[in-house]
Amino acid sequence: MPGKIITLTTDFGLRDPYVAEMKAAILGIRRAAAIVDVTHEVEKFNVRMGAYILASAAPYFPKGTIHVAIVDPEVGTRRQPLLIKTNNGFFIGPDNGLLILASEKEGIVETRQITNRRLMLPEVSNTFHGRDLFAPAAAYLSNGVSPTEFGPEAPDFVKPDFAGVTRKGTTVVGEVLYIDGFGNVITNISDRELALLHLRRGCRIKINDCQLHLEIGKTYEENKPQQSLALIGSHGYLEIAVNQGNAMEKLGAKVGDKIRLAEA
Amino acid sequence: MPGKIITLTTDFGLRDPYVAEMKAAILGIRRAAAIVDVTHEVEKFNVRMGAYILASAAPYFPKGTIHVAIVDPEVGTRRQPLLIKTNNGFFIGPDNGLLILASEKEGIVETRQITNRRLMLPEVSNTFHGRDLFAPAAAYLSNGVSPTEFGPEAPDFVKPDFAGVTRKGTTVVGEVLYIDGFGNVITNISDRELALLHLRRGCRIKINDCQLHLEIGKTYEENKPQQSLALIGSHGYLEIAVNQGNAMEKLGAKVGDKIRLAEA
Amino acid sequence: MPGKIITLTTDFGLRDPYVAEMKAAILGIRRAAAIVDVTHEVEKFNVRMGAYILASAAPYFPKGTIHVAIVDPEVGTRRQPLLIKTNNGFFIGPDNGLLILASEKEGIVETRQITNRRLMLPEVSNTFHGRDLFAPAAAYLSNGVSPTEFGPEAPDFVKPDFAGVTRKGTTVVGEVLYIDGFGNVITNISDRELALLHLRRGCRIKINDCQLHLEIGKTYEENKPQQSLALIGSHGYLEIAVNQGNAMEKLGAKVGDKIRLAEA
Repeated sequence: MPGKIITLTTDFGLRDPYVAEMKAAILGIRRAAAIVDVTHEVEKFNVRMGAYILASAAPYFPKGTIHVAIVDPEVGTRRQPLLIKTNNGFFIGPDNGLLILASEKEGIVETRQITNRRLMLPEVSNTFHGRDLFAPAAAYLSNGVSPTEFGPEAPDFVKPDFAGVTRKGTTVVGEVLYIDGFGNVITNISDRELALLHLRRGCRIKINDCQLHLEIGKTYEENKPQQSLALIGSHGYLEIAVNQGNAMEKLGAKVGDKIRLAEA
Repeated sequence: MPGKIITLTTDFGLRDPYVAEMKAAILGIRRAAAIVDVTHEVEKFNVRMGAYILASAAPYFPKGTIHVAIVDPEVGTRRQPLLIKTNNGFFIGPDNGLLILASEKEGIVETRQITNRRLMLPEVSNTFHGRDLFAPAAAYLSNGVSPTEFGPEAPDFVKPDFAGVTRKGTTVVGEVLYIDGFGNVITNISDRELALLHLRRGCRIKINDCQLHLEIGKTYEENKPQQSLALIGSHGYLEIAVNQGNAMEKLGAKVGDKIRLAEA
Repeated sequence: MPGKIITLTTDFGLRDPYVAEMKAAILGIRRAAAIVDVTHEVEKFNVRMGAYILASAAPYFPKGTIHVAIVDPEVGTRRQPLLIKTNNGFFIGPDNGLLILASEKEGIVETRQITNRRLMLPEVSNTFHGRDLFAPAAAYLSNGVSPTEFGPEAPDFVKPDFAGVTRKGTTVVGEVLYIDGFGNVITNISDRELALLHLRRGCRIKINDCQLHLEIGKTYEENKPQQSLALIGSHGYLEIAVNQGNAMEKLGAKVGDKIRLAEA
């Protein structure tokens, strides 16, 4: 039987040796591990971006997958290392909110601090817990070590401060959660929020100084090239896109911008 | 026996979660799949660049390899999803010419539309067929599902509109097909074309306003550093290179530029 | 038993098909190879950067790992292809110093030229030995072929010209070896050099026109955000970092800059 899948999500980039050192640490403990990169291009120290990407990708992985995520500006301080068991798999990383969006999506079953030194590399540096602590934890977990072995329960953990959506009558105010490499502007307004609006004639969307009158479409191709459109993206959130173009550039949008949506 | 190799060629980039979601979809169906990234850095929507890279890499893979390629500006419209069997392996992706350069190089045996919903993810989004349709198709194929199961024959498919080479007497006119990360300028003039010229004394090459008088050399190192040279690259096409330098910058070349070659 | 691990370190970048062609060449010979990318983002032709990254990552890999490294400005000339056996694994690549930093760290046991044509691809191009020669060598080695089969002993090989550290009384002069993606400035001054200084009250560091008075700290977080600090990084070398900031930008540092360190 093949080993469990271990995924990696970091802000380490792909030029430095750090990602390879994490993989080496895993393979030294669990030679048959199947390691899948989610991304290593999270913006440095941007916990929120890391959390969004992890929560997007994780649900598609098979049951039992172990996700390691490291965006860790406080490495080496007293922030606790966390192991979370969910209904679908495991999340390992620093206690700064990074893991919670994904974990709550799958349903949190158990949370542990990682304190057991026998389940780390023999030498633990103060600056690279990804290699010395988190990667080995994932490998030992995939070897069948029980979560209880890693350390005491961790009932308190940092909740991410992602903005919620506010609704007032038929107006919903959310914000830009992420902008992907195609320039698609992904908001935190879910398809469920939209359903509650009972839109009949499309919607008005205001972002920065741009006013858009849009139908909620289904594909990038229902409009003419270079036209804006709003759609429910593949993760269930409202996206603003431009057919074969770049919505971010067209709207001058950036992560955190407010977006206001109302019936047309 | 190990599973078949599945390769991925996309314009998704490496920051977004999309590539990981494709891999998750594959591993959920075929846990033992060996997935190899060809590239995810195809220029967005540049079908021609994707086709060139895929056709370069594919012939080096073992027999039976399954290549998934997604550069898909028309995702969600009626462009058909394609499965092509060749003499060496399989190609899966949108019907927009992306797969044809590589497939014809290996010899096309069979072409199928992918229409069988049981061989896709349970929910198929309108915007991400890479994850919901193409990746699962590759995984089921590697599980031994026959190409005939995926859908009806696809006798008509889009031919890529890559420029051919024209010859007039002892002059050949081609164009720049690709510029690699070293700045090497790769043309669509093949070694066979060159052989027909029976060059005895090197050649004159004209590209943009640059005139080069070059011997067709064999390595980047036969000239002095920073000198231009022409050679047959490792894929059998004429390349202009600069020894330890950057030909693209020296020539001001870009993809699509005309190149004219004649005996010196 | 799973196959040996094969790692890849190159300056090929991730957009071009070259890395995938190397992997294809390996998998064609050794289907069960576990291939791990160290990096493909070494600066083009920067042998020294490649050597540093390889030497950083290699020690973390399990015994028997085969490391292939290609930063090869002289490809196709008479520079010899090298196979080095160390106490911990194997290094394969061009004879230009690239492999030596990592190999000496592990202890060199045996050095071979790679000349045996039967252990290369059938056609060996003059411009891409990574695919045609080095990748197959790694695959055959992982198949159990003995180092002696690859070619004659290679007693002479190029030593890298990395600058050493000079000491004069209580002053040490080194230089910047590498700057990572976080802007951490990594020097060639080792923890052993520092120990010999018997620092009691921190140190003065001079780099370019910047004077820093620093304690040698242990983590990025012991200082306030945006403050400079010096620490022994996870590889045992003195690093200058800025807490949650970018030391490279703050110091205007670049690879090769001199750094002078003395007791405060």
